[in-house]
Amino acid sequence: MSFTYNRIVRFQDTDAAGVVYFANVLGICHEAYEESLRASGINLKDFFTNPSVGFPIVHANVDFFRPMFCGDSLVISLIPQKLGLDKFEVNYEISVTKVVVAKAITRHVCIDVSSRSKQELPGEIIQWLQTNRQDAESAERRKSREIL
Amino acid sequence: MSFTYNRIVRFQDTDAAGVVYFANVLGICHEAYEESLRASGINLKDFFTNPSVGFPIVHANVDFFRPMFCGDSLVISLIPQKLGLDKFEVNYEISVTKVVVAKAITRHVCIDVSSRSKQELPGEIIQWLQTNRQDAESAERRKSREIL
Amino acid sequence: MSFTYNRIVRFQDTDAAGVVYFANVLGICHEAYEESLRASGINLKDFFTNPSVGFPIVHANVDFFRPMFCGDSLVISLIPQKLGLDKFEVNYEISVTKVVVAKAITRHVCIDVSSRSKQELPGEIIQWLQTNRQDAESAERRKSREIL
Amino acid sequence: MSFTYNRIVRFQDTDAAGVVYFANVLGICHEAYEESLRASGINLKDFFTNPSVGFPIVHANVDFFRPMFCGDSLVISLIPQKLGLDKFEVNYEISVTKVVVAKAITRHVCIDVSSRSKQELPGEIIQWLQTNRQDAESAERRKSREIL
Repeated sequence: MSFTYNRIVRFQDTDAAGVVYFANVLGICHEAYEESLRASGINLKDFFTNPSVGFPIVHANVDFFRPMFCGDSLVISLIPQKLGLDKFEVNYEISVTKVVVAKAITRHVCIDVSSRSKQELPGEIIQWLQTNRQDAESAERRKSREIL
Repeated sequence: MSFTYNRIVRFQDTDAAGVVYFANVLGICHEAYEESLRASGINLKDFFTNPSVGFPIVHANVDFFRPMFCGDSLVISLIPQKLGLDKFEVNYEISVTKVVVAKAITRHVCIDVSSRSKQELPGEIIQWLQTNRQDAESAERRKSREIL
Repeated sequence: MSFTYNRIVRFQDTDAAGVVYFANVLGICHEAYEESLRASGINLKDFFTNPSVGFPIVHANVDFFRPMFCGDSLVISLIPQKLGLDKFEVNYEISVTKVVVAKAITRHVCIDVSSRSKQELPGEIIQWLQTNRQDAESAERRKSREIL
Repeated sequence: MSFTYNRIVRFQDTDAAGVVYFANVLGICHEAYEESLRASGINLKDFFTNPSVGFPIVHANVDFFRPMFCGDSLVISLIPQKLGLDKFEVNYEISVTKVVVAKAITRHVCIDVSSRSKQELPGEIIQWLQTNRQDAESAERRKSREIL
């Protein structure tokens, strides 16, 4: 099973069109990323507040299939993937009552915060990538077997 | 017991000072208000999206006692109070590990959305006010008895 | 010349990493889109508040080249492009002191808001697309001539 | 004349009720505060990003008189006031076409960021307080004289 994060759409997420403001969907995906880090034992305060190593986003994209309304119960499933020694991306799928309403990707590089130069991914992120990747792969294998 | 809402501080809630941006604390309080409406059986989509009756905030205030950091586990407890036929307020107390870090109030009037004229609070809000008020009062009575 | 929008980075745009939160960059691009509509004579209140015709975003992507800090003077230049009878996209380039710090795209479809079915782009948007497209193209032609 | 800041209401500021989300009004006031600091010659990046001295908000309140819509041209006028050696507050008045639509206050303490202990207001803030205060007072005197 891939990691999932449950999130109710809040009034603040919406705009005058009555649905979730497009950029807020990426913010909700980032919450899912934070929650999966936390589930993997990472201390969010240390990770995000004045850290020596950071993981800034260098690319993000998002596709919207259906509008999301205040009160909707979102299920965000997340699969991260290592892209090199100093890079990874995270794939997100947002569903409401099992219907996919949006998909997104965030791509991160690992940097030394003071010099802002790239550096190798540290152990705790390698660990997080492996755990979440294996969970996703075994879920896919299970699905394939069911189809056969 | 008064209604409580649990909320992890997200990266998006913070600012370059490394703590929660002051106005976002009121947004987190409004989430607690939404969650208590939902717990009372109110459909949030109908309540907040193109309703005929609305409850705009006419006043808000907030006091900050300690900074909140990314990853902090907030507990927001909430007590609403009827202020008249067409008005109510909600008192919020935000704690981290049982220490109160902020307190806030939002004051709401009930309006007919199309004319924006005041109108009496409808049954579902009266019900929500009574349930949450009684819970809070019986919790206070219990506390007083424990002290005696 | 393509349309440009000037924007100071605000404290609220930043996060605990001390730079603009990634998803807020798309929000700033949307401000530039709103400003270009306004410059073209479109009434923003009518356009965005309870309209009969809407232009929801179906895709967005953004690349980040350099961090943006509180107080930075952003220049967002914008070029829209018609993609079909019922679709357009907007390309954004964000610069600080003439250095490009981010690029983004938003893709929009035109819908009848009540039925949420696609419909042809209305006159005022065709007009806006032509004006902004021609301005961008003549700027490019001028640039090519300068190179020759 | 007191310092004024002009701001168009953006789509992102609004919520599903079609008007500016209540907590965003305080964010817009903070923008006005930032702009007045900048007008006084203060470097916003140094002031807000990893400073040694900070001015966290310990109290905020806001009253809403009329709804604000996407596209509205807000004029925010601002008057700061020293409250002691280590404290000041800022009073905000938001108008649309000369009608006051909201009023707000933010109260700030001066702290040493590393120890989070209170400290005296530094020279650049004393300067900013005096300039903005005198401007406001001479405007009031002028008004009184006109009445006489």
